Amino acid sequence: MELFEAVTTTRAIRRYRPDPVPEADLARMLFAATRAPSGSNRQPFRFLVLRDGPRARQARALLGEAFRAMWGDKRSDDRYDQGTGADRSSPKARMAAAMQHFVDHVDQAPVIVLACVASWRDRHVTEGASVYPACQNLLLAARDLGYGGVMTVWHRLVEDRLAEILALPERAGIAATIPLGRPAGHHGPVRRHPLADLVFEDRWDQPAGWAVDPPGTRFASGPPRTTDRRVAGPPAPDAGRA
Amino acid sequence: MELFEAVTTTRAIRRYRPDPVPEADLARMLFAATRAPSGSNRQPFRFLVLRDGPRARQARALLGEAFRAMWGDKRSDDRYDQGTGADRSSPKARMAAAMQHFVDHVDQAPVIVLACVASWRDRHVTEGASVYPACQNLLLAARDLGYGGVMTVWHRLVEDRLAEILALPERAGIAATIPLGRPAGHHGPVRRHPLADLVFEDRWDQPAGWAVDPPGTRFASGPPRTTDRRVAGPPAPDAGRA
Repeated sequence: MELFEAVTTTRAIRRYRPDPVPEADLARMLFAATRAPSGSNRQPFRFLVLRDGPRARQARALLGEAFRAMWGDKRSDDRYDQGTGADRSSPKARMAAAMQHFVDHVDQAPVIVLACVASWRDRHVTEGASVYPACQNLLLAARDLGYGGVMTVWHRLVEDRLAEILALPERAGIAATIPLGRPAGHHGPVRRHPLADLVFEDRWDQPAGWAVDPPGTRFASGPPRTTDRRVAGPPAPDAGRA
Repeated sequence: MELFEAVTTTRAIRRYRPDPVPEADLARMLFAATRAPSGSNRQPFRFLVLRDGPRARQARALLGEAFRAMWGDKRSDDRYDQGTGADRSSPKARMAAAMQHFVDHVDQAPVIVLACVASWRDRHVTEGASVYPACQNLLLAARDLGYGGVMTVWHRLVEDRLAEILALPERAGIAATIPLGRPAGHHGPVRRHPLADLVFEDRWDQPAGWAVDPPGTRFASGPPRTTDRRVAGPPAPDAGRA
């Protein structure tokens, strides 16, 4: 598949057919992942693959537990079942149903890849520059081979217990949990905000006249939420620059 | 270009021809970038493009200053000029010369893209999952179109001054600085550690027999450094799991 097609059609896939993923395909996806850049080419990324081994089974059960708890909180906090969400045919209710299906079945995904870091220097956001590009390569290579997955950080709720089960060294950590498999059912298009909201030139909020979406682009609904918040209210107490 | 070729041949490019980047190419790269995933599809990423505007000129000068200072420290801390580095034809000395050229000219790169986040929730590493995949898409699309770039975080030294010049809102921040242009001169292959060092199955440090590099793969020299450190010494004081 052409790079541009892969990049523009890779979307979160949360329902998988039960087919196992051949090892040659897994190897190709992980080779792609590990070609990604990292600070000083240190390559701190490690990929821990969970299939049907004894520890994988324990880790899967824990992940299922964590994902269901995290989604339960989000469903309630973000009021998925209120407002238009009360109508089961609304986009909001259908999103909630899809998420519920995801967390109820994530422990049975054909493969779960834990993207780890061998040795954190600190937990500052910029450390992510040495692991998340590799996760994106993994997802693109999966798309190229006919698989789909989704990057989540919901393992955070059980990270310490996972670390114990999987024998992670003290300085290592998990950056992302990526279930993978052949997509099941229908999946919609990639939807994002218009480029005019996401690309600036020379200074913040100054549109770049040339940053135009290609014809036929599908957009996410509503204005960018983070811009809303920025304009609407004072900074949150924990959101300082430091 | 095929996805797999793009992913496996995209490497850090630090020397650029002076040719300007056509706006249609820029738009295509930024469209690719913004197709990347983010937590709950919030799309907190914003791309601030620096070309030849009045603020861009000030920001470029600041970035040059920061990059030279950061590299100066690294050159000395990592002893680039000692040991084999004293021999100017050694790989170490050639790496140092390439980095020196990079920081001495980075302010003249045809385009510098600042990958920003509109509104940090916190600065935990997992926030990076919503911006660095987009940076990787940008670099892959650049490669596809015949450009090259490199993702750096050396803006951190002058982030507050940049934020002021570029009118970033209080809750926004810069996640990466990505200079871009047509590659100048010769650039080597992508080199990484063998997959056996980077991919585990079922538990940490347990090799996945199927994770084999394709024939002809070029490897980074030496064993993975982070594994060395893990085995060799106690955890650093600041490297706890929390």
